[in-house]
Amino acid sequence: MSQHLINRLCIIGVGLIGGSLARALKKAGAVSEVVGAGRDVAHLEKAKELGVIDHLETDISQAVKGCDMVVLAVPLGAMQSVFERIAPVMTDDMIITDVGSAKGSVVKAAQLAFNTTPETLVPGHPIAGTEKSGVEASFAELYQNRRIILTPLETSSSDAVSKVRSMWQACGAEVVETSIEHHDEVLAATSHLPHMLAYSLVDTLAKMDEKKEIFDFAAGGFRDFTRIASSDPDMWHDICISNKDALVKMIKKFSDDLQLLSNAIENNDSEYLKETFERAKKARDEFCDM
Amino acid sequence: MSQHLINRLCIIGVGLIGGSLARALKKAGAVSEVVGAGRDVAHLEKAKELGVIDHLETDISQAVKGCDMVVLAVPLGAMQSVFERIAPVMTDDMIITDVGSAKGSVVKAAQLAFNTTPETLVPGHPIAGTEKSGVEASFAELYQNRRIILTPLETSSSDAVSKVRSMWQACGAEVVETSIEHHDEVLAATSHLPHMLAYSLVDTLAKMDEKKEIFDFAAGGFRDFTRIASSDPDMWHDICISNKDALVKMIKKFSDDLQLLSNAIENNDSEYLKETFERAKKARDEFCDM
Repeated sequence: MSQHLINRLCIIGVGLIGGSLARALKKAGAVSEVVGAGRDVAHLEKAKELGVIDHLETDISQAVKGCDMVVLAVPLGAMQSVFERIAPVMTDDMIITDVGSAKGSVVKAAQLAFNTTPETLVPGHPIAGTEKSGVEASFAELYQNRRIILTPLETSSSDAVSKVRSMWQACGAEVVETSIEHHDEVLAATSHLPHMLAYSLVDTLAKMDEKKEIFDFAAGGFRDFTRIASSDPDMWHDICISNKDALVKMIKKFSDDLQLLSNAIENNDSEYLKETFERAKKARDEFCDM
Repeated sequence: MSQHLINRLCIIGVGLIGGSLARALKKAGAVSEVVGAGRDVAHLEKAKELGVIDHLETDISQAVKGCDMVVLAVPLGAMQSVFERIAPVMTDDMIITDVGSAKGSVVKAAQLAFNTTPETLVPGHPIAGTEKSGVEASFAELYQNRRIILTPLETSSSDAVSKVRSMWQACGAEVVETSIEHHDEVLAATSHLPHMLAYSLVDTLAKMDEKKEIFDFAAGGFRDFTRIASSDPDMWHDICISNKDALVKMIKKFSDDLQLLSNAIENNDSEYLKETFERAKKARDEFCDM
């Protein structure tokens, strides 16, 4: 009989996020065996070769069988089809969690696939990552001292929530809980909106006649500001669609404030400009002290 | 008789930018003596103690006397009053340049102060800087391999342009020339607009009810994206006012494009989203390869 927190873990999507979770749990002695599932056999073989997973399986319905913990680490746009593969073989002792950047859409996808809200479903979102992707970039320390947001449902069993919490704590992470609506609003503000601004800015500049000089004359600040515009376009397409309502609302809020700032510039409103810049600088400096 | 490129240099405003210029020219053996001018005696004494300047003077009309090169490294909002102090003692062999981030307003300020456009006025803008400020942060290597944009006027004498160019080249910089209008448009796009977006974003988030969670849940991408919101509020107030026309135009262009992106999210327009993100990522990645 296994003394591990998790007996048989299935990671669906063994990339940076899923691979690092497997590595961290193995390193912590918190898992007995890891099944890696995905569509790309060569990729899964690489993960096995690296010792990230113990078994590989391209058929998701087969992969999750006998697993007490299933982690969906696939793009948001693939969640529903993965849930549909799990549904026919789902058991009461199979806990299901995910790592998606938007949570409302994941729950909706699960409800559509399962025709109910499974008691063992505990949506999650690790606030961690690097610019790299793929299992080769995964490492056991990715989640150390990073925040994991869980958004348990009213239907979620406390045992399931507790086990998902313990899983992330075993990786050295700090687990916090909030509601789905709150998560999606806060992430729209702090992550999804900034990505839209960076993508949109770079695209606006790239379409200008002076494109060449613009990038020629850009300094270090521009490099930092636009780094997130190098993020994976497909992933961000999925996030936009999945968190549409909260994101469109945040873009509106931001645009309204930017218009006020533009008016202040046009009207030489020194007081408004200085107050805005000072408030922002203070908030930013305080954030960095944290 | 001096063998130096510059015999007597006056730096008005001995901070990071002005101080680093003096250090670089001294290190290159390109200047015979440096007069530091400013309002704060203690600050100038510090600059002298550090060997950045040889003489100090709080009276600008006195400071520039006998100088063959005068560099204005003061905030944009102070340019006109400095020009007014120089005007009564201006001589034909006194070359005047500046380091302001907007060029149209500097030329206007000079024209108002001198009642003409001096032939020896050569506006300039080094694309260099660090997050620090003050003479203590200055160093001789700041301009090595950095771009300096000169915006000579139709009235500028070729000798004056040539000497300002040589001054910056002696600091290891690459000098490029463009028109005032073009400079101000390109800088609005590549520097002034991003600063407005960063300030406005942080301020929008800081005003939200969920402020605490927003900054709590923010990840590394947010830190990079908002770094420029830590910039000096007074300096950025001056830049906004000085480059108002080009900046308001760029904010409008950006806002229009952001609205199109928001519409695409709202309408699930996957093609528009993916194409925009891919174009932006490509432009950003190419910029970083440069």
